[in-house]
Amino acid sequence: MSDVIAQIAGLLLQARRSLLIGHMDPDGDVIGAVLGLREALRRLGKEAVPALPDRPPSKYAFLPGFAELTTAPAGSFDLFVSLDSSDTARLEPIYSTVIAPAGRPVINIDHHVTNVMFGTLNWVDPKAASTSEMIISLVDALDVPMEREIALPLLTGIVMDTRGFRTSNTTSDTLRAASRLMDAGASLGEVMERALNSRPYAMLCLWGKMLSTVRLEGRIAWAVLTPAMQAECGNPEEGDGGFINLLVSLQEADVGLLFYDKGDHAVEVGFRAKPGIDISGVAFALGGGGHPQAAGCTVEGSLEEVRARVLDMVRRAIDGQRALYR
Amino acid sequence: MSDVIAQIAGLLLQARRSLLIGHMDPDGDVIGAVLGLREALRRLGKEAVPALPDRPPSKYAFLPGFAELTTAPAGSFDLFVSLDSSDTARLEPIYSTVIAPAGRPVINIDHHVTNVMFGTLNWVDPKAASTSEMIISLVDALDVPMEREIALPLLTGIVMDTRGFRTSNTTSDTLRAASRLMDAGASLGEVMERALNSRPYAMLCLWGKMLSTVRLEGRIAWAVLTPAMQAECGNPEEGDGGFINLLVSLQEADVGLLFYDKGDHAVEVGFRAKPGIDISGVAFALGGGGHPQAAGCTVEGSLEEVRARVLDMVRRAIDGQRALYR
Repeated sequence: MSDVIAQIAGLLLQARRSLLIGHMDPDGDVIGAVLGLREALRRLGKEAVPALPDRPPSKYAFLPGFAELTTAPAGSFDLFVSLDSSDTARLEPIYSTVIAPAGRPVINIDHHVTNVMFGTLNWVDPKAASTSEMIISLVDALDVPMEREIALPLLTGIVMDTRGFRTSNTTSDTLRAASRLMDAGASLGEVMERALNSRPYAMLCLWGKMLSTVRLEGRIAWAVLTPAMQAECGNPEEGDGGFINLLVSLQEADVGLLFYDKGDHAVEVGFRAKPGIDISGVAFALGGGGHPQAAGCTVEGSLEEVRARVLDMVRRAIDGQRALYR
Repeated sequence: MSDVIAQIAGLLLQARRSLLIGHMDPDGDVIGAVLGLREALRRLGKEAVPALPDRPPSKYAFLPGFAELTTAPAGSFDLFVSLDSSDTARLEPIYSTVIAPAGRPVINIDHHVTNVMFGTLNWVDPKAASTSEMIISLVDALDVPMEREIALPLLTGIVMDTRGFRTSNTTSDTLRAASRLMDAGASLGEVMERALNSRPYAMLCLWGKMLSTVRLEGRIAWAVLTPAMQAECGNPEEGDGGFINLLVSLQEADVGLLFYDKGDHAVEVGFRAKPGIDISGVAFALGGGGHPQAAGCTVEGSLEEVRARVLDMVRRAIDGQRALYR
């Protein structure tokens, strides 16, 4: 593993102008990895443009370099670094318009087990709890001292992808990595308050509406979200505001599902599972991806159709699986 | 500080039979500290009885020694160790019936800044995020190797008193302490799932009812809970199930208040504040206690009277105070 990190560091040091790109619908981990690596490269005097296919949520505006994030990277690049993206579809439209035509090396850094190894060089570590945690090793390989401006985005990525150290892939190494970033000047309290533990008042309205849709069927708790519900609550940012995690936290449930019925005969489905239960196969079979305990996909059909189909698939998938802690 | 720890270790090693006692309305930290210290003393062949004034929540039944916790300690003791309790009132009725009459030394180990130093020997460290974190140093002073059965309750205490490393007093040392406990065999995932991230389906019903009472007045978000609401939802364990933390997580709020109207002309008030805001003075002035960002008290009066009085006091208290992250 350290070989590929050294190779990646070598390519980054040789590059004249690189593009650091993360996945669409950006979350804290991809934003943290892009901004943390960008800041480390800046310390070396290297030009690295941070880009995302979609605008990032405004709550991450406290991160150094946030204002530099672009959805339309301009100019030419001699190196591309994809961060936290399992395939090139999640880099669109930037992949087709900027990356593929350039014909330059693509470094693929990710921790998703569903990564399809699309890079010229692939560093994929499913044991890492976040891509941001992996970037710490890369910063070390680049021989850049860890400082607050690098540490704050990386700590944000670790916190957000582990939901505040709650996911089952959080190891003692994850905690030590976080404590090292804190010692470098990143405030865990600031990250928790600004990124994880922060929701608009309007989100309570939306939670109330989602609460009224919750059903518990066997070991599956599910709820529905619609654009109409969002509009009635003033369209708060960030979808369900973590409501799906509440579903899977229920003692009676092994799986939490959120159906986001967009109304155009397509339903986005969010999956969460307790440790010991793996629902990533269902999401993958439906054209999506993710981790054993957190995944997502979009399914064509009416809410009724999609719900029946997904519930049936999940029921079959978890038959014989047992949660670790019951 | 290490002097007092060595003295406490010395007293524990000399004692023939000690009582380890925590505060009423027990939470994860007091349960973790009592059970972790008890397990360490067992390794030394010392008899130590773990006691609490009230029955602990059943979700902590996975902790080693949980079944030994008693609300009615019998026999004689030559040493008393109070854990996580700021005063003797929170040890009642055991303090008056068992501890005071014995006339033996009382060791007071706590991390609450409001501790009134009631012990023969007082070890109070307000910088510690939890009493359980302090017990790690005591286990070391006792020269007992850290093992899973000691580490699991202590990790539970750390996680619960920091709300999963979310409170602003969580330091890099807290994370290192937790990683050390994980290396000793305690599963953070198990603690998160069983203790922190676990609620009965019935709690969703209660959250729905509390949601309908939420009001945002200036920088204060408040809600009401009543025994009638609890009964309508099947009386789920553990009060509000963490709903008050949702209130203070709102971007518009600096303070979250939960009024538990018990209906007997007394209202329990829970206080939460964002980092930078200190509401412990209000709780203390009303006869309660706690930390700058988390406190509680019980106030005589009707819901209307108590709410008006507390809101007014909080408004005055936070006037001029600013949240660190806005």
